[in-house]
Amino acid sequence: MEVKHINAICQATKQIISTHFGVGVDILRPSAGRGKLTSEEISVILGIKGQLRGQIICTFSTETARSIISTMMGGMVVQDIDELGWSAVQEFGNWVAGTAATELSKEGCLIDVTPPIINEGDSKYYSESPFISIPLHSALGHIGVHISVQEVRQGA
Amino acid sequence: MEVKHINAICQATKQIISTHFGVGVDILRPSAGRGKLTSEEISVILGIKGQLRGQIICTFSTETARSIISTMMGGMVVQDIDELGWSAVQEFGNWVAGTAATELSKEGCLIDVTPPIINEGDSKYYSESPFISIPLHSALGHIGVHISVQEVRQGA
Repeated sequence: MEVKHINAICQATKQIISTHFGVGVDILRPSAGRGKLTSEEISVILGIKGQLRGQIICTFSTETARSIISTMMGGMVVQDIDELGWSAVQEFGNWVAGTAATELSKEGCLIDVTPPIINEGDSKYYSESPFISIPLHSALGHIGVHISVQEVRQGA
Repeated sequence: MEVKHINAICQATKQIISTHFGVGVDILRPSAGRGKLTSEEISVILGIKGQLRGQIICTFSTETARSIISTMMGGMVVQDIDELGWSAVQEFGNWVAGTAATELSKEGCLIDVTPPIINEGDSKYYSESPFISIPLHSALGHIGVHISVQEVRQGA
């Protein structure tokens, strides 16, 4: 994984939180891992194809999901996450996908992202590819951005 | 979702189990759902791009995962699933991806599949797209194949 690609994806998520949600974001210390990734209560999975292949997984707690949904719905109080709420979380995933694709294209890297799917429940992810995990902290709560992409060789 | 695409993906999974694992497979009654999908202990997530976009998720119990790994490793007894074991489950996902792409191409539908990612833990999936769930039963155990794909309009 190239640092410029990781930075672009990270920048994309930060940009969405600051522009769409209007809150400041701190990027905490990234870590690299391999094999196993422990999720939080909710994760949004985006598949990546094109010049990179792999996944971006955004993980957060149910409380952070409630803040995200509430802000997207104009400040509405969210108790239980209903169908409309999950749809808002999925839309958040679409924003991450679209902005990541735009930021990567500025680095000359063209990708295509699958529609997001949401996983709810304490679970672990396994992949043969290494992961880079970037914790973002904002007034919405803590969001983990986990990137596992391989570069597709030209002509491969 | 078109029936011919669902049949092709279903046929692909059946074919892998019967040819690679040498066991007979029964396809049980499919069901259609929307919004929420309850996973089993282990799920393999494949992202789909190309003329279809969405996900194929294969779900099974830890016991079925042990049977799959054991058979792939020439009958070795599997107690705990280690790194090599997860890598075998991921390879199973690659087989499903490759065969699904081949079967769909016979129907004139070209797709590209992301590398599989594995989720372990009781969890639920949410997606705005409808799901078709097809239960497969074999000597390996029960495998659920869940398909959520949308056709990409030509020129879109």
